Amino acid sequence: MGLLLLAPLGSIVALLFAWYLSRTVLKKSEGNDLMKEIAKAIREGANAYLKRQYSGVALFFAVMFVILLIIALRGYLVIFVPFAFLTGGFFSGLAGFIGMKMATNANARTANAASESLNSGLRVAFSSGAVMGLVVVGLGLFDLSFWYYFLSWWYRALPEAARIQNVTSAMLTFGMGASSMALFARVGGGIFTKAADVGADLVGKVEVGIPEDDPRNPAVIADNVGDNVGDVAGMGADLYESYVGSIVATSALGVAAGYGVDGVTVPMIMAAVGVVASIIGTFFVKSGEKAEQKTLLKALRRGTYVSAGLIVIISYFLVTSILGKENIGVYFAILIGLLAGIIIGLSTEYFTSDSYKPTKELAGTSLTGPATIIIGGLSLGMLSTIVPVVVVAVAVLASYFLSGGTESFNKGIYGVAISAVGMLSTLGITLATDAYGPVADNAGGIAEMAHLPEHVRERTDALDSLGNTTAATGKGFAIGSAALTALALIAAYKDEVDLIVKKEGLSFNMDLSILNPTVLIGLFIGGMLPFLFSSMTMKAVGRAAQNIVFEVRRQFKEIKGLKEGKQGVKPDYAKCVDICTRGAQKEMIMPALLAIIVPIIVGLTIGVNGVAGMLAGSTVTGFVLAIMMANSGGAWDNAKKYIEAGNHGGKGSDSHKAAVVGDTVGDPFKDTSGPSLNILIKLVSMVSVVFASLVLHISLFK
Amino acid sequence: MGLLLLAPLGSIVALLFAWYLSRTVLKKSEGNDLMKEIAKAIREGANAYLKRQYSGVALFFAVMFVILLIIALRGYLVIFVPFAFLTGGFFSGLAGFIGMKMATNANARTANAASESLNSGLRVAFSSGAVMGLVVVGLGLFDLSFWYYFLSWWYRALPEAARIQNVTSAMLTFGMGASSMALFARVGGGIFTKAADVGADLVGKVEVGIPEDDPRNPAVIADNVGDNVGDVAGMGADLYESYVGSIVATSALGVAAGYGVDGVTVPMIMAAVGVVASIIGTFFVKSGEKAEQKTLLKALRRGTYVSAGLIVIISYFLVTSILGKENIGVYFAILIGLLAGIIIGLSTEYFTSDSYKPTKELAGTSLTGPATIIIGGLSLGMLSTIVPVVVVAVAVLASYFLSGGTESFNKGIYGVAISAVGMLSTLGITLATDAYGPVADNAGGIAEMAHLPEHVRERTDALDSLGNTTAATGKGFAIGSAALTALALIAAYKDEVDLIVKKEGLSFNMDLSILNPTVLIGLFIGGMLPFLFSSMTMKAVGRAAQNIVFEVRRQFKEIKGLKEGKQGVKPDYAKCVDICTRGAQKEMIMPALLAIIVPIIVGLTIGVNGVAGMLAGSTVTGFVLAIMMANSGGAWDNAKKYIEAGNHGGKGSDSHKAAVVGDTVGDPFKDTSGPSLNILIKLVSMVSVVFASLVLHISLFK
Repeated sequence: MGLLLLAPLGSIVALLFAWYLSRTVLKKSEGNDLMKEIAKAIREGANAYLKRQYSGVALFFAVMFVILLIIALRGYLVIFVPFAFLTGGFFSGLAGFIGMKMATNANARTANAASESLNSGLRVAFSSGAVMGLVVVGLGLFDLSFWYYFLSWWYRALPEAARIQNVTSAMLTFGMGASSMALFARVGGGIFTKAADVGADLVGKVEVGIPEDDPRNPAVIADNVGDNVGDVAGMGADLYESYVGSIVATSALGVAAGYGVDGVTVPMIMAAVGVVASIIGTFFVKSGEKAEQKTLLKALRRGTYVSAGLIVIISYFLVTSILGKENIGVYFAILIGLLAGIIIGLSTEYFTSDSYKPTKELAGTSLTGPATIIIGGLSLGMLSTIVPVVVVAVAVLASYFLSGGTESFNKGIYGVAISAVGMLSTLGITLATDAYGPVADNAGGIAEMAHLPEHVRERTDALDSLGNTTAATGKGFAIGSAALTALALIAAYKDEVDLIVKKEGLSFNMDLSILNPTVLIGLFIGGMLPFLFSSMTMKAVGRAAQNIVFEVRRQFKEIKGLKEGKQGVKPDYAKCVDICTRGAQKEMIMPALLAIIVPIIVGLTIGVNGVAGMLAGSTVTGFVLAIMMANSGGAWDNAKKYIEAGNHGGKGSDSHKAAVVGDTVGDPFKDTSGPSLNILIKLVSMVSVVFASLVLHISLFK
Repeated sequence: MGLLLLAPLGSIVALLFAWYLSRTVLKKSEGNDLMKEIAKAIREGANAYLKRQYSGVALFFAVMFVILLIIALRGYLVIFVPFAFLTGGFFSGLAGFIGMKMATNANARTANAASESLNSGLRVAFSSGAVMGLVVVGLGLFDLSFWYYFLSWWYRALPEAARIQNVTSAMLTFGMGASSMALFARVGGGIFTKAADVGADLVGKVEVGIPEDDPRNPAVIADNVGDNVGDVAGMGADLYESYVGSIVATSALGVAAGYGVDGVTVPMIMAAVGVVASIIGTFFVKSGEKAEQKTLLKALRRGTYVSAGLIVIISYFLVTSILGKENIGVYFAILIGLLAGIIIGLSTEYFTSDSYKPTKELAGTSLTGPATIIIGGLSLGMLSTIVPVVVVAVAVLASYFLSGGTESFNKGIYGVAISAVGMLSTLGITLATDAYGPVADNAGGIAEMAHLPEHVRERTDALDSLGNTTAATGKGFAIGSAALTALALIAAYKDEVDLIVKKEGLSFNMDLSILNPTVLIGLFIGGMLPFLFSSMTMKAVGRAAQNIVFEVRRQFKEIKGLKEGKQGVKPDYAKCVDICTRGAQKEMIMPALLAIIVPIIVGLTIGVNGVAGMLAGSTVTGFVLAIMMANSGGAWDNAKKYIEAGNHGGKGSDSHKAAVVGDTVGDPFKDTSGPSLNILIKLVSMVSVVFASLVLHISLFK
């Protein structure tokens, strides 16, 4: 128990350092009045979004809370679950909120700092990203520690083995709140940002003929807000969910593996160690004045590698001292996870960066029109699934067998679960290098709108384009850890069912053979789920974008002097933001309900075996589809940029138009549907765990 | 054994009736000299294709034959397998060959008959389709009967139980030949037809500005050949494979279910009954003179429904008399299969026909450009997976439990397998209504090129557009039966492994739990396989199309007077056909090898459990992806036609251009990658079965 104190301590350290970093950022100047004004508009928009988002989600949480409470009062759930559902959701939302607050306060400051020097710009943007990264891990550790200590105290009368089992089993269900919130944030944010993006371009650039980022465009602020809403708040909630999910899944499996309290201690302290490693890593991020991709990338990577290196060293002592030298395999599992995340990130970079063959070739297919670049991009995305699938396959196999799978299934699967924790242990800093991207992007927009000198824009551009590369790495971690955690959750689900069966003296044994027809059917239904979900989210983006188009057209028509740029005439930015927000809130309901209702329906009809099959099916398809969508989308985006850089006819050519079509198709792929799938597959598992007892009692087939 | 004689008898009846039908078709006149000339060019092109295709595939079969022979001589395979591999491939290819021969002889005759009356046109086109349908089932039954009788004679010394086990187990591996051939035919044919289509349009229509189907276009014949090559020969080989596959899988499972010889008799005689029912059905296909979709559809459906009705009645007596009234559940499984096929077909029609909301809405998304129609089409395809998945899920569950799954797993899974046989029992006539489409399509092209009167073209158009609807139904059967057969093959694979283990006294038990890490990894790899395969086939179409573009450009440049249409100047049609063929042959190798090599590699590394997981994964993803691709593609095609019919601006408008982009993306979706996936998932299973013994002996993990 003593060592475990490191977890809340780590949480406090992370939050304090985040607070310190945010202070240093906020001390910087926001620049001239025009910059301040623009930044304020973006901030106001973001606040408008948050207000609406939280009132909508609060309603959902209230309803779910009541449902869970009823189920708990009927005895099918531990009474704490409804409450922990709330805290999970709350902290996940809070992490996104703080991250976004910081980002919207740092954009103008980054632009201003970049006018001094490249390194200053980098430091401001990166610091604001680090705030988000540290807030995510800090709040995550806080939530986990709180419940761990509270539950341990509550069950203090029980003998240790039973106590820890009750604690981890209850904690496992907490993930549902975080996952629900994350899904709303990702889907909602994704719809928002893409609706604003497409809407602003379609009317502003195409119909009215004003340049991008022009302050006359009523949707331009919504567009900039969107970057923060989707890429910062959405990602923050998403990774909070991944982080907490991987730790609770591992903890729950630790009991079955026979590690007792130590099984919980290791992942929790790993996370605390990660905090310290990440903080140390941030000090290594600084650059010279050459705005070269390579140099800048090196600067950012240095921080990540230092953190990773520290974790490699510290976790060795951690594992061997807590679990003993005979369980050194767990340490290897952590390393494997860390390595797998890096390889998946590199593979994403290879398939989506225009420095490599795939995207260069894709750009070439634009010469024969939009159809061929679409086919090419889909084909590229499909092909790109091979590396992550093989890496995850090898990682699962290696971490399973190295951590003792041959003697004990539970030890093996604990290894798989902890490899996800290993992958996410550097989250504080990887998230920092990821979240800094949209800040730099916003800074570029502000530099443009505020007519700052050319070299400022050049610097922010260098920072921004680097953000695309680091985002690829970030996606690797998000997607890889999602697969591993989802697999661990299937095992945890089985443990949970077995536990309930034992507790309640039911005569039931799970039969998870793929030839069991209910498992088989579950596989099919689960396999279809990500397709259905993606269908809904893609359509949602289309509909929301249409509403923005109508509003922007209306404002240009009704507000006199707006188009002409008359002094003092301002468009109603907040209205566009509000429409995006309303659209996003409305459209995110159905996909989220799908994720919650399907596992319950499947459970009630084909029982817990069917649910397990469904989890496996959705994990497999969701993983593959998520990679495909992310990489197709990323490659289309960069193929367009490659052409804009003067290749294949350059900007304005037919091939550029074709590439724009590809990029637009890719938008919902990479920023809405794709990243949401990572959350979907875990939320489905979490819901299944929470409803396991209910399903066991009243399902048709058992 | 007596009743089983119905199988070869059915085969002979089918082939004789096909011969009779072909005679009646060939007696009709091909029309005027110009029509004859065009038809001859298409025929020559088709022959050129076949020549090349068969020489390429023959090489593959020779190599595989030697490999299988070596494995067999080493004792890891029954010695007949290499030979049956050849006959399976030979008959599958032969079915496609005869079907295509017939189709290329019937196109001009259909055009000519249509100038007499609509009903005459319908009869000629339909009869030629029926020839193909009957040849497929006739040759299938012939191949099956031959091997059944031969092997029963060979193993005559064994007691009945052991004999039938040896026979069915050997027959199971025969499917590999048929599936390999089918994959080559589908992939090759699909690449050919789409390369020619895209190439002809891109240069002819866009660059040179001559109308579609203009005889000056060097690729126009290749385009028409393509319809026959892809939609007739490819489909014939494909459904031959489905037909044979479902019967051998069911037979193999019959032994484990404890039905002995009867377990083989039922599916074989079901097939024979299907032949008779299909032949009777053909007599009910005739129409009046009103060229209305509804009336014509009724005419074709009447034939299918009569056949289905007959099967519903006869199979009741068949099942109860052979298996006894206590096994009436098997009869229900057959009905469920039949019904499931019809529902999937209707769902395909709903999602892809422009008479319904989804495609109409999709056409509307073209108003905002190509990107939105692409997103809309992908979203539609993804959404459309829900019905087939739920139908297959319910069908599996119902046929499993109704046919005795509660007492015996093997009886239940036998029910699942035979439901696929039920689904395909009307194949003779469903394939006829399907294969008649490309004939009508070709007839329309000939009517256009030969300047026949307007009303002839109207009639062939009516027949052609009906073909799109019946093709949707056909796809329902192909895809639904593929899923059911693939599931049955997983069970058959397990039986096979168990058999080998028992025979050779190995100490090994399969553990097919989804939590077994090798199974889990298998699921992932299997789940990725269809994505990888589709990536390759889509890229292949792109590359092959490019070669055609170059050749057509060359001919227009180098052949003097061609563009101007000078008397006596003819383009080199055969050259384009040859390029398409070469391209198709070259490009089909890698995807086919993938299907054969991956299961072997997976087996050798993660063992038979991993292979089973891989089979489940590829079945699930392959099924879902195949439906999505088929329906997205179909909907784009019909959305374009809907716009061409005068909606949303009609032909030549911006929305039409956007719809053309959608249609072009849909081409490889629906005619190359999508339909090949059905074969892929079965070929992978067949290969796994054939290599099971080898894998069991030398794999790393067991």
